[in-house]
Amino acid sequence: MAKAITPRAENYSQWYLDIVYKSGLADQSPVRGCMIIKPLGYALWEEIRRYLDAEFRRTGHVNAYFPLLIPKHFLSKEAEHVEGFAKECAVVTHHRLRTSEDGKGLVVDPEARLEEELIIRPTSETIIWDTFRQWIHSYRDLPLLINQWANVVRWELRTRPFLRTAEFLWQEGHTAHATAEEAIREAELIHDIYARFSEEVLAMPVVRGVKTESERFAGAEETYTIEAMMQDRKALQAGTSHFLGQNFAKAFEVTYLDETNTRQYVWATSWGVSTRLIGALVMTHSDDDGLILPPKIAPTQVIIIPVPKPSAELLQEADRIAAILREIGIRVEVDRDEKHRPGYKFAEYELRGVPVRIAIGPRDLEKGVVEIVRRDTRKKEYIPLDQLSKYVPELLEQMQRELFERAVQFRDANTYYLDRWEDFEDLMHEQGGFVYAHWDGTAETEQRIQELTKATIRCIPSDAPQESGRCILTGKPSSRRVLFAKAY
Amino acid sequence: MAKAITPRAENYSQWYLDIVYKSGLADQSPVRGCMIIKPLGYALWEEIRRYLDAEFRRTGHVNAYFPLLIPKHFLSKEAEHVEGFAKECAVVTHHRLRTSEDGKGLVVDPEARLEEELIIRPTSETIIWDTFRQWIHSYRDLPLLINQWANVVRWELRTRPFLRTAEFLWQEGHTAHATAEEAIREAELIHDIYARFSEEVLAMPVVRGVKTESERFAGAEETYTIEAMMQDRKALQAGTSHFLGQNFAKAFEVTYLDETNTRQYVWATSWGVSTRLIGALVMTHSDDDGLILPPKIAPTQVIIIPVPKPSAELLQEADRIAAILREIGIRVEVDRDEKHRPGYKFAEYELRGVPVRIAIGPRDLEKGVVEIVRRDTRKKEYIPLDQLSKYVPELLEQMQRELFERAVQFRDANTYYLDRWEDFEDLMHEQGGFVYAHWDGTAETEQRIQELTKATIRCIPSDAPQESGRCILTGKPSSRRVLFAKAY
Repeated sequence: MAKAITPRAENYSQWYLDIVYKSGLADQSPVRGCMIIKPLGYALWEEIRRYLDAEFRRTGHVNAYFPLLIPKHFLSKEAEHVEGFAKECAVVTHHRLRTSEDGKGLVVDPEARLEEELIIRPTSETIIWDTFRQWIHSYRDLPLLINQWANVVRWELRTRPFLRTAEFLWQEGHTAHATAEEAIREAELIHDIYARFSEEVLAMPVVRGVKTESERFAGAEETYTIEAMMQDRKALQAGTSHFLGQNFAKAFEVTYLDETNTRQYVWATSWGVSTRLIGALVMTHSDDDGLILPPKIAPTQVIIIPVPKPSAELLQEADRIAAILREIGIRVEVDRDEKHRPGYKFAEYELRGVPVRIAIGPRDLEKGVVEIVRRDTRKKEYIPLDQLSKYVPELLEQMQRELFERAVQFRDANTYYLDRWEDFEDLMHEQGGFVYAHWDGTAETEQRIQELTKATIRCIPSDAPQESGRCILTGKPSSRRVLFAKAY
Repeated sequence: MAKAITPRAENYSQWYLDIVYKSGLADQSPVRGCMIIKPLGYALWEEIRRYLDAEFRRTGHVNAYFPLLIPKHFLSKEAEHVEGFAKECAVVTHHRLRTSEDGKGLVVDPEARLEEELIIRPTSETIIWDTFRQWIHSYRDLPLLINQWANVVRWELRTRPFLRTAEFLWQEGHTAHATAEEAIREAELIHDIYARFSEEVLAMPVVRGVKTESERFAGAEETYTIEAMMQDRKALQAGTSHFLGQNFAKAFEVTYLDETNTRQYVWATSWGVSTRLIGALVMTHSDDDGLILPPKIAPTQVIIIPVPKPSAELLQEADRIAAILREIGIRVEVDRDEKHRPGYKFAEYELRGVPVRIAIGPRDLEKGVVEIVRRDTRKKEYIPLDQLSKYVPELLEQMQRELFERAVQFRDANTYYLDRWEDFEDLMHEQGGFVYAHWDGTAETEQRIQELTKATIRCIPSDAPQESGRCILTGKPSSRRVLFAKAY
């Protein structure tokens, strides 16, 4: 039997951990707040990276790599940034260990204290903008469009694999522009890439919008965000891109000579998505039997299992089918394991989220058919061998589309337009969900609502129409609805 | 004019730095010993990663990701390993900064001291073997073939971009096996992958062999190495794979039940190559005008430059040629810059090492030809347009082959078989080179030779024939020659 997963209805948090640890996405590590990303989890990250990297290249960005360690004084150069990032971080103070006096262990060598402490990057704006000062002199050097794939560390108190870990993997884009308009267009371009990737590849519908001032990235003038609904009806911020104005340019004195030979500060953006997307993927699609992966992101899209056993004849046929599917670009594998029974294997591949399972047995082969089962619906069909190269890609496309539609339906069924505070409070104290409501635009009200219900303003949605109304808490006038939800 | 490069003959070390900084491979950083890998340098790393990752997959390895930070006590578990790695490293002692009392800067918060210090990984054997203990129970779990692409930090006193930096990027493979024989085969398989990659892709000839006991990796029972000759006739260790015996299995108590239900320690390997390969690439092929990149690794293989200017007509033709070459898998770009003159551009692309330059001008076009220049030989040819799709790929292959042959010739011309100590000493004090000489097999002699000449034993070459002789220093008997050189 496959390892038992706690049902969502019983304990949602434990269900999530069970999926992550038992499907082989990640493992706990001996280092506080850090996880081990296992081969299946890392393969998902590689797929995410492959798609996004191609998009970034297509839109003119290039990859580079900046140091892991940042001198302490860099962090205090941008006033808001320091508040947001300089506090809970990993601080390197020494550069040597020596054998302890009892000869058995290691101690920090007090003589190897660094003159200035180094911080493991929580994000790289500071060191990158320090470098941009050397790289940017004239309008000819702009725009500068840099991306970095890297690890970062933020000392989080409460951690959860993929969703919030002390160390995580991400990409961080950092760009410099001659005008504010161009920088804003860049932030919006990336916002659009993130949203389309989430919906088209991860099959995860998102609400697009901008953050309120109090939820913005530390040092940003505008933060664009995509917000997805998880199966417990909480929101998850899946990717942000920031228009940074001239804040970092001024903090690090990054200027250029424009075409009239006048010195100007440059305009900036930064943007990132992280291994958090893997947590979002799990919580959008999976069920009580394990992972469900949308075909476009699944490292293995089709598993072929000879039943009841991988005899030479069945393996030959399995390999033949695999070759046909591989030829048309499908990621397919053949199960050659002789130790386990079909029932065990079926459960294992369901646990690991492989979208399509093909079982081939001697009887089916005589009839010239195979059994095909889709992971999400478990619908079983018998398909003639000579139709596989047409049927399988169509099935994968259909599954991709239907996973997205199912997620949209779930979200819409749990989205409300509320105008009465009692309804808002009741909903947030009970099942939760996305609520579009009027807000008076003040940070005080935003904070008060959070204190009363734990719900925060996820975003001011891009497509919210102008609509006059009254703030759901204070009754003060408002011109559009914003999106509230409890969030990860 | 392109930025001036110090000639090799004048100052080899400065030549290397000039190439690295002026061609756009890397930049200095404000963090001691750390470099910024610029887009061209990072693109080379991505090509290296792409080739090797495919080879690792083809041979059954999977990627995973382990934490950056390692608990201090892990490092002292394997006695030799601690000597080699636990000393000069980055030590994290605190997890918070706070605003200083004058309100202007940041200080380490003394209340946020970690209970146990964390070390930024200098290599990951310890944390990976701690994990393998959870993953390995039975012979069915073996072999376990894991690779990781990651950054590591070693606190080096003297650093040089790519060759020796505090932080560098690498891949580290870690495998576990049921038998010693299988682990040794694994170490040899990877050794072969590294050697073929160096020769076939980087066009860098290597001597294959094993390290002497004193040069082995800390904790290894055998270290396989590939050694290349740089243009200053010094050796560079380009990639190592280690048979670790049962040392880490015993230190971390990693056992399995074999088919007879007997508990056994597992056998281990580890292996890695790093961004150092980019330094090796520079020093193998480049000249006084800049980088020379072998076509197989060059991010841009062909640059097409409209001369004297990118007129609409010339650009159209350039794009047409680019499309034809792209179609047959060549990485090609068209120069659209209107600001600089052809001479400047030619020098810039030479500096950046683009293997082939195609210039198209109005007169040539009338004649139906283009001018093609190869970066290394600068040989200029006029080729009819309709022959480009045949000529260019052949030229790239020829250049790849000839760069390798030229490097082999250079190495062979600077390789000696010496039997007299005076000759050895003279050579090492003058021009240097590779020397095959007899050695009595003792660490004392090895060390004495290093003290007298700075030359070390690079390896005991795999293909050195049995040959009786006398140690070049002590005159004691020896049964085969080993390879001596001064090294990076």
